[in-house]
Amino acid sequence: MFEAVLTEGKTFKHIIEAIKDLVGDCNLDCSEEEISIQSMDSAHVSLVAVRLGSEAFSTYRCDRPNSLGISTSNMDKILKMLGDKDSITFKAEDDKPDILTMLFESENDNGAIADFDLKLMDIERDQLGIPDTPYKCTIQMPSSEFQRIARDLQVLGDTCTISCGKEGVRFSVSGAIGNGNILIRANTAEKDEESVVINMNEPVELNFALRYLNFFTKATKLSNTVVISMSPDVPIVVEYPIQDYGHTKFYLAPKIEED
Amino acid sequence: MFEAVLTEGKTFKHIIEAIKDLVGDCNLDCSEEEISIQSMDSAHVSLVAVRLGSEAFSTYRCDRPNSLGISTSNMDKILKMLGDKDSITFKAEDDKPDILTMLFESENDNGAIADFDLKLMDIERDQLGIPDTPYKCTIQMPSSEFQRIARDLQVLGDTCTISCGKEGVRFSVSGAIGNGNILIRANTAEKDEESVVINMNEPVELNFALRYLNFFTKATKLSNTVVISMSPDVPIVVEYPIQDYGHTKFYLAPKIEED
Amino acid sequence: MFEAVLTEGKTFKHIIEAIKDLVGDCNLDCSEEEISIQSMDSAHVSLVAVRLGSEAFSTYRCDRPNSLGISTSNMDKILKMLGDKDSITFKAEDDKPDILTMLFESENDNGAIADFDLKLMDIERDQLGIPDTPYKCTIQMPSSEFQRIARDLQVLGDTCTISCGKEGVRFSVSGAIGNGNILIRANTAEKDEESVVINMNEPVELNFALRYLNFFTKATKLSNTVVISMSPDVPIVVEYPIQDYGHTKFYLAPKIEED
Repeated sequence: MFEAVLTEGKTFKHIIEAIKDLVGDCNLDCSEEEISIQSMDSAHVSLVAVRLGSEAFSTYRCDRPNSLGISTSNMDKILKMLGDKDSITFKAEDDKPDILTMLFESENDNGAIADFDLKLMDIERDQLGIPDTPYKCTIQMPSSEFQRIARDLQVLGDTCTISCGKEGVRFSVSGAIGNGNILIRANTAEKDEESVVINMNEPVELNFALRYLNFFTKATKLSNTVVISMSPDVPIVVEYPIQDYGHTKFYLAPKIEED
Repeated sequence: MFEAVLTEGKTFKHIIEAIKDLVGDCNLDCSEEEISIQSMDSAHVSLVAVRLGSEAFSTYRCDRPNSLGISTSNMDKILKMLGDKDSITFKAEDDKPDILTMLFESENDNGAIADFDLKLMDIERDQLGIPDTPYKCTIQMPSSEFQRIARDLQVLGDTCTISCGKEGVRFSVSGAIGNGNILIRANTAEKDEESVVINMNEPVELNFALRYLNFFTKATKLSNTVVISMSPDVPIVVEYPIQDYGHTKFYLAPKIEED
Repeated sequence: MFEAVLTEGKTFKHIIEAIKDLVGDCNLDCSEEEISIQSMDSAHVSLVAVRLGSEAFSTYRCDRPNSLGISTSNMDKILKMLGDKDSITFKAEDDKPDILTMLFESENDNGAIADFDLKLMDIERDQLGIPDTPYKCTIQMPSSEFQRIARDLQVLGDTCTISCGKEGVRFSVSGAIGNGNILIRANTAEKDEESVVINMNEPVELNFALRYLNFFTKATKLSNTVVISMSPDVPIVVEYPIQDYGHTKFYLAPKIEED
């Protein structure tokens, strides 16, 4: 038996919206401590890792670890019906192993109640160890700003060079019509979430496929800030923290430039 | 000679928007009492009935009953040019039997004046008697809520079961990805138009093509409330009242389930 | 060396948006007095003339007349990245003749700085003499109203008759579904930009391709008012003034009706 109530249901909606274009079918892993998702994208280029701690839920009961195989696009279709202020109650019963029941209720007593049975699938798991290494550079910036940069630079080319140095963080793209650079400098805004905080132990410069950075920014609704971590020769981490009880992280290996 | 001035011209605009996807060509029937439209949809599955009483108009003169055959899509193109606060003056002169003239004027004296001559057609009429029977269940609910339900449930399947019982009204759909139910309960909101009022003599459960329910909800702009009437084995009526001087009604026969 | 700073960068963005659908590649002609563009559209039917006087810029330095050949669609792609309150610094250096550098800076010191190098092309110039003749009729009206009329009347046909007479200015279109007239009368609104001012020496009636009038209205964002000038048998001028330091003008020859 698994049962959990997420008062702010739209958090889960935004998670599925954030990953559905990258990840088709995946396991929703439920344990005593958390719900998590870990999956390579369908092209096996990037990795998605989602975590919602049990403290995110007003009710949480998970008798035994359980993997619920979902189609993210079907889940997304059902979540489209979630009202902005609705809670979600998740229920997976032991005697119905191929069904995940979701109840959408508005806080308003007189509102509509909706319940959905989503068919589950068996999905082979390829659990991946993600080393928790320290990074040479960490950049915290407004998520909407990162989204804008990734979207804008697409018109110039396919590959974005991200270089973190003394001046700040520079996003550069070069292509047929010309080239462009956008420089973000550390700064302290009145609101923490509008600040840019750069922690740099040593300068790092890496190249990434803009297409994937743009996939990641589908998570912008999840968080006002994004945290970008880089070290030479290892995958970049683009993290959208979900308040203090979870996150959606994307990992992407740098492109190796041939000279 | 037919001449009528509709101060709130956008009411007529919304009527045409509501029916144009269902009904291609139809007669605008003008009599001393009212303007009305009655037509099957092009697939002959549902029936549309519109009525605007003469009291809806600030000026109304109809010397003799007259049928003006219009293309709803051409009419819609012209009405796209109507300003939000414009009045419409309709004029059909006896010596120009194939022209309907419409004048759009804003209340503002300095505004633009637009006049249009729409070409009319001869349309064979198949006047249909609609029996005015009492219904076992009548549900009044916010039209936007009904629109949301019909739209949302589409992703799950093609057929919607509407069952009116003690608990309330349940909209259910079942399909390949799972199934869903949305329950609406009677409730009294501060504003009448936000209330849900259910009159039930006996429980009724019928199946309908969601595609058509979604066609009907194009009338949502016409009215804050929708009134749904059901009896076993007879067509459902989905009515959008137009203040106290008219309505747009849609009739749709239930689907017969084969076991 | 050419260097110029446009504090309100979006003015230039709006100019390029206004002409890019008409003009593919064109020269940005820089002189001591102004930046200007003059080009026929790709079908050689209409003419575009843009002028931004040096007084439009907070810094302006042009050592020698210079023609910068740009692709308007590439320029537009880069300008999409301009923030609403960003300034643009243009730089063309003599030793890099095939590059136009643009710097986008927000007034906010902490904001992002973006710089772009746009590749330039050699474009053959066909400088056209535009006679500065007096016109029989001049109409000043809100640009948004002109945009609405040109857009709305498209559904009725391809050719718009514009006739300026005692009553006002009449825009007429006739086609398969019927015909329509929109009449604009002179009037004095509280705000100058909402007024309609008609100067008529003698009545003029000319026919124009609506398709082109609709191209011209892409300049609506540039100015609250549009000034339309007409004389018999000569091209109409549709001018969008840019404050008091420039303009975007479109010229279009009237259609000759065959009887």
